[in-house]
Amino acid sequence: MAEKPVCVVVGVGPGNGESLVRIFAQKGYQVAALARNLDRLTHLVSEIDGVAAYACDATNPGEVDQVFSEISRDLGPVETLLYNAGSGTWGGLMDVSEEDLKRAWKVNTMGLFLTARSVLPAMVEAGVGNIGVTGATASLRGKPTTTAFAQAKGAQRLLAQSIAREYGPEGIHVFYFILDGVVDLPATRKMMSEQPDDFFLKPDAIAASVYAICQQPPSAWTFEFDLRPFGENW
Amino acid sequence: MAEKPVCVVVGVGPGNGESLVRIFAQKGYQVAALARNLDRLTHLVSEIDGVAAYACDATNPGEVDQVFSEISRDLGPVETLLYNAGSGTWGGLMDVSEEDLKRAWKVNTMGLFLTARSVLPAMVEAGVGNIGVTGATASLRGKPTTTAFAQAKGAQRLLAQSIAREYGPEGIHVFYFILDGVVDLPATRKMMSEQPDDFFLKPDAIAASVYAICQQPPSAWTFEFDLRPFGENW
Amino acid sequence: MAEKPVCVVVGVGPGNGESLVRIFAQKGYQVAALARNLDRLTHLVSEIDGVAAYACDATNPGEVDQVFSEISRDLGPVETLLYNAGSGTWGGLMDVSEEDLKRAWKVNTMGLFLTARSVLPAMVEAGVGNIGVTGATASLRGKPTTTAFAQAKGAQRLLAQSIAREYGPEGIHVFYFILDGVVDLPATRKMMSEQPDDFFLKPDAIAASVYAICQQPPSAWTFEFDLRPFGENW
Amino acid sequence: MAEKPVCVVVGVGPGNGESLVRIFAQKGYQVAALARNLDRLTHLVSEIDGVAAYACDATNPGEVDQVFSEISRDLGPVETLLYNAGSGTWGGLMDVSEEDLKRAWKVNTMGLFLTARSVLPAMVEAGVGNIGVTGATASLRGKPTTTAFAQAKGAQRLLAQSIAREYGPEGIHVFYFILDGVVDLPATRKMMSEQPDDFFLKPDAIAASVYAICQQPPSAWTFEFDLRPFGENW
Repeated sequence: MAEKPVCVVVGVGPGNGESLVRIFAQKGYQVAALARNLDRLTHLVSEIDGVAAYACDATNPGEVDQVFSEISRDLGPVETLLYNAGSGTWGGLMDVSEEDLKRAWKVNTMGLFLTARSVLPAMVEAGVGNIGVTGATASLRGKPTTTAFAQAKGAQRLLAQSIAREYGPEGIHVFYFILDGVVDLPATRKMMSEQPDDFFLKPDAIAASVYAICQQPPSAWTFEFDLRPFGENW
Repeated sequence: MAEKPVCVVVGVGPGNGESLVRIFAQKGYQVAALARNLDRLTHLVSEIDGVAAYACDATNPGEVDQVFSEISRDLGPVETLLYNAGSGTWGGLMDVSEEDLKRAWKVNTMGLFLTARSVLPAMVEAGVGNIGVTGATASLRGKPTTTAFAQAKGAQRLLAQSIAREYGPEGIHVFYFILDGVVDLPATRKMMSEQPDDFFLKPDAIAASVYAICQQPPSAWTFEFDLRPFGENW
Repeated sequence: MAEKPVCVVVGVGPGNGESLVRIFAQKGYQVAALARNLDRLTHLVSEIDGVAAYACDATNPGEVDQVFSEISRDLGPVETLLYNAGSGTWGGLMDVSEEDLKRAWKVNTMGLFLTARSVLPAMVEAGVGNIGVTGATASLRGKPTTTAFAQAKGAQRLLAQSIAREYGPEGIHVFYFILDGVVDLPATRKMMSEQPDDFFLKPDAIAASVYAICQQPPSAWTFEFDLRPFGENW
Repeated sequence: MAEKPVCVVVGVGPGNGESLVRIFAQKGYQVAALARNLDRLTHLVSEIDGVAAYACDATNPGEVDQVFSEISRDLGPVETLLYNAGSGTWGGLMDVSEEDLKRAWKVNTMGLFLTARSVLPAMVEAGVGNIGVTGATASLRGKPTTTAFAQAKGAQRLLAQSIAREYGPEGIHVFYFILDGVVDLPATRKMMSEQPDDFFLKPDAIAASVYAICQQPPSAWTFEFDLRPFGENW
């Protein structure tokens, strides 16, 4: 293929999003980096070759349709979609509002639905494609502080499973990686300044595994894998 | 206690909802039966002693607040909440709309959040209470036909877990029962008219187990249990 | 039925075993209480009507065959088998021996296999029967201190599942209950004397739930349920 | 490091074992290939550079001790242990014998225990090491035909988890990969000759993923991942 394959990373901020953009660009992809706010992306575009930035609220159907049309037109059909948007308010049942639950669900689950729907027809036509989703241990269990977050991640994980089972036979590899630990970010470093360096999940290490999973041949695909720092108490 | 304990069943229609209403009324509860449409409830009120009917859309915060205030005023504080609302459009990723995903999530997850939030303060004050939620195998895995439904049930299950872990130590017993099979309803009988009687999950049998779980002493509570017909292939 | 139904409890000691014997005797069963050592059983036989004691090492095929033949001859065909034998040495990989692993596996898994095999033909002939197995959270996950125990409980749980799926359609109800907490025993009370009374899982409460699950009609059977004290951190 | 790192593959036969030997040899490892029967290994030794063959019954403590001592002496301390031994008799409860259960447990679980115990002290001293275990979907659920196999794989999976949690903080990466599908072997091809080529899990594809997981930096380790052919119905 003369053309570079296209990878879209949804939810690019400092951390996993940036590392995913970097590694796919290094490996020869043309990368579309999406965030709600373009400001977060400008330094990536200037620092890394092969990165284009798009402002997009992944929970807004109209925006998603429009931005993914632009990407197709600008870069070509999407080969790999990495859905990394996802957040949630911490707190117990009385600490979170119905808006908190809804927002968490929309950014984790509805956004995955909308973006997957945008890329799947072209992937099916090509008979090839990857959709990787950033998960969390909260996708497996609800705790008192994850009233809003766990329900959203649980929904996201099962949506990813439904898509994986439906589109696997079409040649599309859908996978879900469960981060179990604290990601190394300026914010988490500040909050947990007493922790040693190796306490943290490094975004570049996460991104390297995501890239490796995308390389699996169709004969042996992984749907789900966990990632945690070696010292994590799990 | 001179007063009858109060049980609220949310999502009463033919099937599990009706059976839950019946058994709790028989066992001496004052039962509030909720459905979006009062028409579905009038025969229950006239047939069974100790049942009051309320129209309520469980996904509407204002309605939930108002109806649960009425229930408290009419019947007293709620001791047992049974959340039985839940549905979802069948189909693959391209067959369901964002509205289908949202509706399924709202009725399964947001409704549980809103109604649990309405009853928990009085339960905590009393130091006792039950919240039971009607689950499904789709809460554990996503299949190609459950794009909308599985994400909603997965979210619901983890929300129930979060509440169970937060409010267990306060004396509130939260549990989730996973129906694995086809519930015996006029509609399913019609669709699967070739199936023998014992193919179906009987609503009265489900309700009997729900009632038994509500009787567990705090020393040995169940959070999750499955229910399936003996012949089910699982 | 003029004859009392027969219940066999395997692994009777202070705690769950005794409580299971008591409740099934109270409810009208003829109960066969099995332990490796008859001394543990004599007080039960003298205190409770309808209890017969048998010495049996459940991991010894010859003994199991012989004792279950005696039970059939003495009391009639077994309607309910409760497999409560199970133990395991605590410790890390270097702390436990191959004998510890083997012993834990034999008492939890091989014993279930041998005793289930002894009762199933008569149950199949009758078209009815219950097999309940005492599980533990260790059946779901291995921790550093459960090197010997978790592998044994994990094996036991999947063996129970295999039997449940094979014999459900024959009318035999197989279930597994997962104890998540510290059972109230003289030994655990002594070791954890600082804990309040309600910290412990009470054997009578466990036995009551086991009995209730045995009453489920074939239309809605539970395979697995958890039991934990209300204050447990899970 | 001037010396080649040492990888031991336990349970080498046609299929996954051979492919693991090949890829680790290609990547620069000195590989010790173990099987009960040396005959199975001679062609590998002659075909591939860097492979040494050892006869070893992994369920025999004395043999394991002796063979792993030889390996250390011959090749140096083991950096990577791949436990690929594992089999089980198919059949329902009445079709399998206690010997079938025991043999399956010994080869899947006891053998992992014995070989892990042989390599861990040197790994801990080095502060680095990998232990990978070949799992199966049967490690997650018991079916009517897996009475002997599922209990053994369930035990093996939880043993691997216990070791992973205990030795992760020491720098040892333990992981479990769940094969969900039919592995491409002469025997399975013959039995399922009507299936297309892409129906099968290819051993080389499995081995490539195992190798990739061994490369993960300690900041982001995977314990468990599944592998299945793209068209698998799961």
